[in-house]
Amino acid sequence: MIEIRTDLAIENREMYQEQNEGEVPGVEVEEERGEGYTVTRVKILDERGSTYLGKPKGVYITIDVPKLKNADQDLKDEISKLLAKEIKGIGITDEDTKTLIVGLGNWNVTPDALGPKVVDRVLVTRQFFIAYNKDRDETVANVAAISPGVMGLTGIETGEIVKGIVEKTNPDLVVAIDALASRRMERVSTTIQISDTGINPGSGIGNKRIGLNEEYLGVPVVAIGVPTVVDAATMVNDTMDLIIGSMKSVAKVGTEFYSTLEQVSSEEKYDLIKEVLEPFMPNVVVTPKEIDSIIDDLSIIIGNGLNIALHHGIDLQDVNRYIS
Amino acid sequence: MIEIRTDLAIENREMYQEQNEGEVPGVEVEEERGEGYTVTRVKILDERGSTYLGKPKGVYITIDVPKLKNADQDLKDEISKLLAKEIKGIGITDEDTKTLIVGLGNWNVTPDALGPKVVDRVLVTRQFFIAYNKDRDETVANVAAISPGVMGLTGIETGEIVKGIVEKTNPDLVVAIDALASRRMERVSTTIQISDTGINPGSGIGNKRIGLNEEYLGVPVVAIGVPTVVDAATMVNDTMDLIIGSMKSVAKVGTEFYSTLEQVSSEEKYDLIKEVLEPFMPNVVVTPKEIDSIIDDLSIIIGNGLNIALHHGIDLQDVNRYIS
Amino acid sequence: MIEIRTDLAIENREMYQEQNEGEVPGVEVEEERGEGYTVTRVKILDERGSTYLGKPKGVYITIDVPKLKNADQDLKDEISKLLAKEIKGIGITDEDTKTLIVGLGNWNVTPDALGPKVVDRVLVTRQFFIAYNKDRDETVANVAAISPGVMGLTGIETGEIVKGIVEKTNPDLVVAIDALASRRMERVSTTIQISDTGINPGSGIGNKRIGLNEEYLGVPVVAIGVPTVVDAATMVNDTMDLIIGSMKSVAKVGTEFYSTLEQVSSEEKYDLIKEVLEPFMPNVVVTPKEIDSIIDDLSIIIGNGLNIALHHGIDLQDVNRYIS
Amino acid sequence: MIEIRTDLAIENREMYQEQNEGEVPGVEVEEERGEGYTVTRVKILDERGSTYLGKPKGVYITIDVPKLKNADQDLKDEISKLLAKEIKGIGITDEDTKTLIVGLGNWNVTPDALGPKVVDRVLVTRQFFIAYNKDRDETVANVAAISPGVMGLTGIETGEIVKGIVEKTNPDLVVAIDALASRRMERVSTTIQISDTGINPGSGIGNKRIGLNEEYLGVPVVAIGVPTVVDAATMVNDTMDLIIGSMKSVAKVGTEFYSTLEQVSSEEKYDLIKEVLEPFMPNVVVTPKEIDSIIDDLSIIIGNGLNIALHHGIDLQDVNRYIS
Repeated sequence: MIEIRTDLAIENREMYQEQNEGEVPGVEVEEERGEGYTVTRVKILDERGSTYLGKPKGVYITIDVPKLKNADQDLKDEISKLLAKEIKGIGITDEDTKTLIVGLGNWNVTPDALGPKVVDRVLVTRQFFIAYNKDRDETVANVAAISPGVMGLTGIETGEIVKGIVEKTNPDLVVAIDALASRRMERVSTTIQISDTGINPGSGIGNKRIGLNEEYLGVPVVAIGVPTVVDAATMVNDTMDLIIGSMKSVAKVGTEFYSTLEQVSSEEKYDLIKEVLEPFMPNVVVTPKEIDSIIDDLSIIIGNGLNIALHHGIDLQDVNRYIS
Repeated sequence: MIEIRTDLAIENREMYQEQNEGEVPGVEVEEERGEGYTVTRVKILDERGSTYLGKPKGVYITIDVPKLKNADQDLKDEISKLLAKEIKGIGITDEDTKTLIVGLGNWNVTPDALGPKVVDRVLVTRQFFIAYNKDRDETVANVAAISPGVMGLTGIETGEIVKGIVEKTNPDLVVAIDALASRRMERVSTTIQISDTGINPGSGIGNKRIGLNEEYLGVPVVAIGVPTVVDAATMVNDTMDLIIGSMKSVAKVGTEFYSTLEQVSSEEKYDLIKEVLEPFMPNVVVTPKEIDSIIDDLSIIIGNGLNIALHHGIDLQDVNRYIS
Repeated sequence: MIEIRTDLAIENREMYQEQNEGEVPGVEVEEERGEGYTVTRVKILDERGSTYLGKPKGVYITIDVPKLKNADQDLKDEISKLLAKEIKGIGITDEDTKTLIVGLGNWNVTPDALGPKVVDRVLVTRQFFIAYNKDRDETVANVAAISPGVMGLTGIETGEIVKGIVEKTNPDLVVAIDALASRRMERVSTTIQISDTGINPGSGIGNKRIGLNEEYLGVPVVAIGVPTVVDAATMVNDTMDLIIGSMKSVAKVGTEFYSTLEQVSSEEKYDLIKEVLEPFMPNVVVTPKEIDSIIDDLSIIIGNGLNIALHHGIDLQDVNRYIS
Repeated sequence: MIEIRTDLAIENREMYQEQNEGEVPGVEVEEERGEGYTVTRVKILDERGSTYLGKPKGVYITIDVPKLKNADQDLKDEISKLLAKEIKGIGITDEDTKTLIVGLGNWNVTPDALGPKVVDRVLVTRQFFIAYNKDRDETVANVAAISPGVMGLTGIETGEIVKGIVEKTNPDLVVAIDALASRRMERVSTTIQISDTGINPGSGIGNKRIGLNEEYLGVPVVAIGVPTVVDAATMVNDTMDLIIGSMKSVAKVGTEFYSTLEQVSSEEKYDLIKEVLEPFMPNVVVTPKEIDSIIDDLSIIIGNGLNIALHHGIDLQDVNRYIS
């Protein structure tokens, strides 16, 4: 069987709708358009929605910015503010919220390094609250941050590291940043997904087996992710479907041709995918050539968004000018 | 029109043979098999060969090591020695050869950073020849090395930088290292191409307009390259051809179905490629997820090969133990 | 008051002996000389020794290799083996020991990056024990590793992070690697200190307030450190003492001159130190210009030593050839 | 003999004035104070001035910003603008000036990496002038940039590389950026020196033997440098002089004590310096612990200054917002 690989709720919904009419049962969607961007809020309300979309109940907000890649600074700033607004909108932060930011992913693998790079950009303040023995501050909130690495580097489940730290430092909120895989190239580096469900096993472009979610960590977890790759097997599969679909559209229903097209089996397709991608399968990704600089840009946009969302006395002008 | 993107002479030959019987006119090929590797020497003898393969006259040696990716140190060492032998076999180096090694590519773009990384690994000695006012040495040859960057970083054609340095330092030989694109995933990071024709416009995964060849630089140029990516448009195109071919193989010649398959036009395919790859087209690459560490490994193998080939008093044991 | 800054027990002992005759009470010392190195074992036996040397009871082994900086590979290998022998000699590891290696220090500050760089060099295996559900293996022991960062980067006490991970993963042993400060330039990058007392508050070139020791973590902690800097204030102070001492040696006891030299007060010296080092005081370090490459070399030597010490089926040839 | 190591004309002048009354013959100095900074222009007018200060005739502008290390963004911006003004003031740039920026120094040695890091920050445009076959542009000037490395990395004199490129690309102006050594800690990372004399042999913290100056390159060369280290031997020597001076100030002229202080010989001092700094002498530097982040900050300030100075249509707001 070929598995379409995506970490975006919005794409799971699209896949449902490719095969069915109407909205996904148990799911509510609202869309909001701005200049240069679209915000889509997919709410999975119950078990049915959860089963259809393969994701836990909760809110999945997608900010789509088709021109983010070549955005000027004004649009980037706009997106940082929008991200901050959506994070706040989830409703779990105020001035007294103690946050632990977790940058997931492997810093040695470029398209997986988004999380650690965002961590380098956030304003970490918890040490000052400790040093001055304070509970609150007029300008900044209590924020800690860590990049725990991946199991191949540490030998330890990422979830265990984070849980150990949560138990020692008792944050009110965990924000986890991760690089994602999308199904479509057009979403790579142009879409930000924010969710109140945390990171669940199998998500992200690495393989995590323990979830980073409220159930496991005992505190709410907001997940922020951006697709940085398309899985190559998914792209090859979609390409085959496209060409088959294109031929079907000109064939007459009922002809031998049409039924042959109908019958191209999953196994045949899988064999062809293997032929194209071996010997690297399943670890081949499709990614823009300039992914290194794209990740740098994204980490600034997201880092700024987090700084505005979490620190009540900090606005965009401050983050651009006073934090580096 | 869809252009199949490859920098490997061996793949240009394959493409000829997909459409024609027999060897390419004006081309001579010899193959040598060893344990774990195959060496193929494609000699383009005249204009006909040059036109068919789209490459200048000269020798293109390919070392194929299907298991290079997961090779143990013994196999890696074997390949370094083989590479050294083939470089020497081209017949332009002896103990008195003064060599300039040029690491092409952009160090900020992981799959394009092979050249600069190899330069970090070679034993540079020219400064000692100058400091001690020597012409020759018992152990090492006179070697200089530079990574000139790419035009997007410097504003200067790479060729001009190299030519300026060649004119100032008068080497007898230039060795240029570059990351390549191959048509097939199976060759990515498993194939080393060595050629006595230098780098010619349009080669490599960046875009160079001036060649780094004997004609331009005035000294012989050996080019060493390894494919690190497959161009995504090429992969999508090949995928479509595969599925069409697969359906043709079951269709009966003469049926409407067969002729529809025959008629899938270049434009239709191109439109589908664009649909899959926009908005990043034409800068999308397919690459193993662990390309960062693959490039590190390759740069050691090639750096060792160069150190053995160029420095007469140095063998493999030395490069593994005394050069870092 | 001027504080002489050193993390080496051997230098604390020297300071005692500058002012007193004989061995430090409550301290036992043995020395062993090899070709190119000296091993000194300082054992602090009781409270008296602990007070005089300002360090907890325990063993402090120093491997001094005056020529380590320019060592050839043979000497480096020798030191890795010696280090492995001393780690084993402390007597707390066997084939079943589960070890957590902790790379202390700030990866963004070159002379403080030794710990994280060693972590990049050790063979991490714990993930395979989990994946294959094994308790022991013929070749390798169960090893995990982490670089927790510093409080300025994470907002969290390093000790808390490590303790959280220890509680989740239950290792039998923690090995902590840290960059140290020595009093003398001649020990920078030529001395390795191994101790069974862990890291105690105030040690290392960063400032840690919670110790990484058995008392806090609940498991034995071996600390391995190499001095990478001399504190500039310490060097300036020692320089002043040297010149004063040099003048005293030519002055006659009892003369006005001699007594003036005797009377150069601590405050005067401190004022002069401030004059030389402001405005960076107290964060000025003296370090070899090539510290970046020295740290790279040291991390390989120590990483190899750890791989040999911890993994029973791995010897030096393996670490040089099969682990990268 | 102990050589006081400094690359700053302003410190050469101070050294003259420590021993002599009045202004250096053949030298003119003007000072301008602003809020938070002082600009000093040392003009060496003739051979006498050149001999006394050990530097070629020309203008040496020093911008001193004592609080640069902890500056907020407003002060940093101010300094970028000031730097731009002084570069323009030297009077050799207009909209049609083609500039080659050269980042000197070794990118692998933190305190020597300033030049290459500035090159990463400048807006390079020459490729667009070539692509669009233009001579001038409304917004930007024609700028190329290169980091040629150091002789230990390339085997080639930096000067030869730059000259080769100058001959191929014919710029009207070369701007060379280099890390410097100062005599005093208080100038480290707080002082920017701009000069119209280029880089002359022996300058900079590396060792260059060929000058990068108009005489050698055939085009005017502006040099921009910032001290990032104090040579440790210089600091130890100055410390000894300070303590001797301090004792002299309390001793009576004519006493045995006073004359002993007078007689501390150069050799004695040199022996003590060696005692303190061996075995690293002469390659020991004194540097702030946080030099890595200081270099990052400085490279932004200088890069911004260059972008404003060279590109007529770009002001500070643009460089902060649209160039990264």
